[in-house]
Parts: sequence; structure tokens; C-alpha cells
Amino acid sequence: MKISDIGETELIKRIHKKVGQSSKDVIKGIGDDAAVVVFDKKYYMLFTTDSLFENVHFSLKFFTPEQIGKKAIESNVSDIAAMGGFPKYALVSLILPKDTDIKFVDKLYYGINKASKKYKINIIGGNLSRGKSISISVMMIGLVEKKYLCLRKNAKVNDLIAVTNTLGNSKAGLELLNHRQKGPSVGYFLNPKSRLEEARLLAKSGINAMEDISDGLASETINICNESKTGAVIYKEKIPISKNTINGAKKLKKDHYEFALYGGEDYELVFTIDKNQLKKLNNLKNKKNNGKNKLMFSVIGKILPKEKGIYLLDKNKKVKLKQGYEHF
Amino acid sequence: MKISDIGETELIKRIHKKVGQSSKDVIKGIGDDAAVVVFDKKYYMLFTTDSLFENVHFSLKFFTPEQIGKKAIESNVSDIAAMGGFPKYALVSLILPKDTDIKFVDKLYYGINKASKKYKINIIGGNLSRGKSISISVMMIGLVEKKYLCLRKNAKVNDLIAVTNTLGNSKAGLELLNHRQKGPSVGYFLNPKSRLEEARLLAKSGINAMEDISDGLASETINICNESKTGAVIYKEKIPISKNTINGAKKLKKDHYEFALYGGEDYELVFTIDKNQLKKLNNLKNKKNNGKNKLMFSVIGKILPKEKGIYLLDKNKKVKLKQGYEHF
Repeated sequence: MKISDIGETELIKRIHKKVGQSSKDVIKGIGDDAAVVVFDKKYYMLFTTDSLFENVHFSLKFFTPEQIGKKAIESNVSDIAAMGGFPKYALVSLILPKDTDIKFVDKLYYGINKASKKYKINIIGGNLSRGKSISISVMMIGLVEKKYLCLRKNAKVNDLIAVTNTLGNSKAGLELLNHRQKGPSVGYFLNPKSRLEEARLLAKSGINAMEDISDGLASETINICNESKTGAVIYKEKIPISKNTINGAKKLKKDHYEFALYGGEDYELVFTIDKNQLKKLNNLKNKKNNGKNKLMFSVIGKILPKEKGIYLLDKNKKVKLKQGYEHF
Repeated sequence: MKISDIGETELIKRIHKKVGQSSKDVIKGIGDDAAVVVFDKKYYMLFTTDSLFENVHFSLKFFTPEQIGKKAIESNVSDIAAMGGFPKYALVSLILPKDTDIKFVDKLYYGINKASKKYKINIIGGNLSRGKSISISVMMIGLVEKKYLCLRKNAKVNDLIAVTNTLGNSKAGLELLNHRQKGPSVGYFLNPKSRLEEARLLAKSGINAMEDISDGLASETINICNESKTGAVIYKEKIPISKNTINGAKKLKKDHYEFALYGGEDYELVFTIDKNQLKKLNNLKNKKNNGKNKLMFSVIGKILPKEKGIYLLDKNKKVKLKQGYEHF
């Protein structure tokens, strides 16, 4: 049997079973945005790793080397942020073809350094190897105050489900590029930003589960439900979608909801919160956060008991949510 | 200019300069076997990452999936060991072609788990991606007691240089395989073992610098000298080489000293020690270590002032040491 016959999600489950139990200093191993281990009285340590491969995650037709470097850092910060934590260190490993221009490496590191400085991340190591195509792998280490840790498994039945900002922007940008069209979503796709600031505000506001939206809202909702052993309903018309994404989808004669539900690499956050905590969060929404961006979020659904299933409510029609992007 | 024009060593230096200074909780960033950051009163934390790529680091003609899995863990443990520390956690990322047989993944993880259990390492995360050929990237996290940390830069002028066991075995095995010949070195190449036990004994015995020999004795000696701002002499006839390696080299009409000096993936240790500490170490050599293997090592050279250079003494002839394997 080939791995494409069982798919990525099943393969991860299979590997998880093989790896087995961890020792008690491991708070969370495989199955969340980052691994969590005991650090000291106040903090847990977070570990994550994410890679960008040429022609899988980026094409040199679309991305500048600087944008690739930035994206490699942002995607890992996004995973650390989704745990409620903040990044500290990173190791960067490159696979490069022999004939790579040295200017490409210089510009790539310009992007890596620029993004790292923004988050006060120290690049402390890595690895170089030769290969047929380019890849950038980042391993990132972060910390989270124990009381702020947000695990996928923390969702409770009757929690509200909410997302930050708007969804589908990145997928709209990618599709426009693929169809040689222009539009403001393209910039969003090429220059993704993690929501570290928002994630920290949310973690401090007593939310329950949190996850970053790297594989589309549908996949991430399923992940939270699987880890929390719950069901969920998402109200289709409440999914926040920007005008740019709607216009982009129109140009391409595609459904913008499909972009939001099944498009990857938005780096927005999906989280669950007890409805009694919502007022506190709404106050943050209207307050300037030290002169920085306002916290923007929309309630889009509710956590249900497991037996109710995981579905989208489209007017009165129940539609089963499918997994989004699968590598295999 | 292409990266192959400047080579791997120069490319690393260039990246190191770009990355710049780290914050003061980073004891050692780029430039050693692992990165070192502050953990608690007693320990530093160690981070390393190493990858195995199909047709660069392994060929499926020679390796079983189980052996690849084990090697991926052993090579990272070797880096942690070379700092004087011990491993704790690992993240394992795989790139797999879509048509990979699921049995391959099962057997690979059988090897990964077997090696991890031996060292009490918890596999706490990782990543899966699709690609044209197979690769396994491991990020490993370890600890080291502050007083036992062995940095490459710790070598002192007049230190003796020593290596564990014998060198060149792995290269002899690889060359035999490449020439469709047999010999006991083949098993050594396919089933490399890190020297964690020996490294811990050495670290506790007051050695100065230490490094694992993954790119050949010449490269590693040059690394220690560059970091310590010293020179060094290696006495050719003192390099310990096993009968198997000598016989393998004979079969192939090659020089066994070349295997030891420039062959990769031996995973033995090279270290430097004040000559007054040598007696203590010689005592360990003759003592059974809790019923485990004896500590075996040979003094092969001496650290010199920088202006003397880095060379091999072949009878009375000085030969300049060259860098070993370069990826570009």
C-alpha cells in the first residue's frame, strides 16, 4: 500500500501510534502546532519545525528570495503563537543546488534576518546540504507562561468558535497568480504575517483552544474537534471574508467560501472561548492595543458534543467538513 | 558567483556574519556541533539538526529503512555528545514521494524508535511533506551540565589531541560498497553508532575541546583550530586505524590514511586535553566502565600556536591539512 492511499492525516496518526508514550516532562508531543515540555516554574518550552520546498510551498516564478526567507520565519512564529507563546531561537537548514547564485543566499538571509529581528529571534544554528531543488527548514524554540498555554484539546462543549481578521486571502492570491491575474490578495499570499500579537492577547484573555489556520478553516476545526473529542458547527455566512478575496474569487469564477474553508497558509487564528468570557474579549476588540493594531475577530461557530459531528451550516443545510490540503 | 565557487565552509562563514550577534542567553550559536543556550542553574540546553538525503547521505541500494532511521538518530546524538551533553527530545521531519510504500515508513520508524529508546529520547513532533526523493531531518534537544560543556573553541596551546577508537571505518565501508566488494567495514558504515558514553566520560574528565568526526579528522581538526585560534600538528603514524580498514583499503588499492583523514561519518570523537590531565584519562582507559565498553583513545597530535599552521607530520615531512567533504 502506498502512503497516498491512506493520506497525510492517517499517516500522521499511524506514526503517532508507533512513537508511543512520552515521559512526564513532555506536556504535549505530536498533535498540536508545537511540542510542549517543562522548562521552569513559570514557563513551558515550545518546539516546532516547518519547511518550505521549491515547487511545493513556493515557486521562484512568484517569490523573491527575501519573501521566501520571511515566510519561513513567519510560518514557524505562527505555530509558536498558536500555543499562546512567543519565539526565542531558530535553527535554519538549507538545501541548495550547487549552481545556486550566492546573491540568492544573501537575499534569502536578508529576509530571514529581517523577520527574525522583528520578533527578537536569535538564529543559533542550522545545516547546509546539496540537493536538486531549494528548501528551507526552520526549527523554532519558544516559551509560554504555563497559565497561557492554548492546546487544541482544550475546547469545551458550548464554547464559541472564533477566527481573527478574514480568511481565504492567501488562497485567493495564489489562485490569481496561477491564472496570471492581478489583485491585492497577491501581496497577502507573498508576504504572509503571523498573528503573534493577537495570539498573545487572546491567550491572556482566557480563551480555551487555539490553532493557526495554515491548512484552511475546515482542517483546523477538525483538528481541534479530534483533539478535544468534540463536534462543531460552523455558520457559513459568519465566516469573515475580505472584499479583496471576494473580488479575486469572482474574477476566477470560484467560490470565496471554498478559499476560506480549504485554502492554506492564511496564518490567521481559530480559537474557542466560553461564551461568558466573550464580553472581555469584545472590550479588547474596541481598544487600541498600545497604539498597535486592534484585535479583530468574528464568532463563526460553536463546539458541540462529539456525536453531533463536525459540519458547516449553510442556511439550513448541514454540509460535512472535509480535510483541506493533504500532502499525499 | 555560484555557491560552488566559494564552497560550503566559506558559505557558512558568510551566513554566520549575516546572522550577527546573539543575545546574552545564547552561550554558543553557529559554529559548533550544537547551539548552547542558558537553561537553569545547573544545565545548558543544546540544539542541533542534521538531515539525511537520499542519494546524498544514503542510497536505498545499500541501506534498509530501519538502518536509515537509526542513522538519523545516531548522527544527531553524536552532535549532542560532542558538546559533553546527553539527548532528551527529538523532532523528526520526513519528505516522502507520494508513491512511497507504507511499509517503508513503518520500518523507518522502527529504526528511529529503536535508536531513540536506547538513548531515552522522546520523539515530540515533526513534519511531513511531499517531495521527489526521501529525506529525514532530525532536530535534537539535549542538556549538558554547565561544568561539562566542551566547546570547539576551548583548545589551548600545548594541549594533546586525541581520538576515540579507530578512524576511517565508515569510509572504507562506503568505498567497498561502491566497488561491489565485501568486508567487515561495510557493517560499520551501515550501522554507525554515536559515542555518547565515551563523550560523557571524557567531558567529566576535564578535557578541553571536543568534536565528533563526521567529516573526517582533517576537517574537524581545522574546525577546532579555527574556533580556538590555534594551529595543530597531527602525527600521521599515530592515527589509529583498524585492521579491517587497512584490509579494505588494500582491496581497493587506496590509502587507509586518506580514509581516516578525509572520510566522513565515523562518529568517533576528537578532543584536546592538558597533558597533566592525561594520567587521569589513562586510568579510565584501563578500567571497565560499569561493565560497559572500555574507553579507548589514542593521542595523535598537539595544539600549536596559530602561526605554526595546521599540518600533518608524515615522518619528517609537513603536509598541509585540507578540508574534507564539502557539500558544494
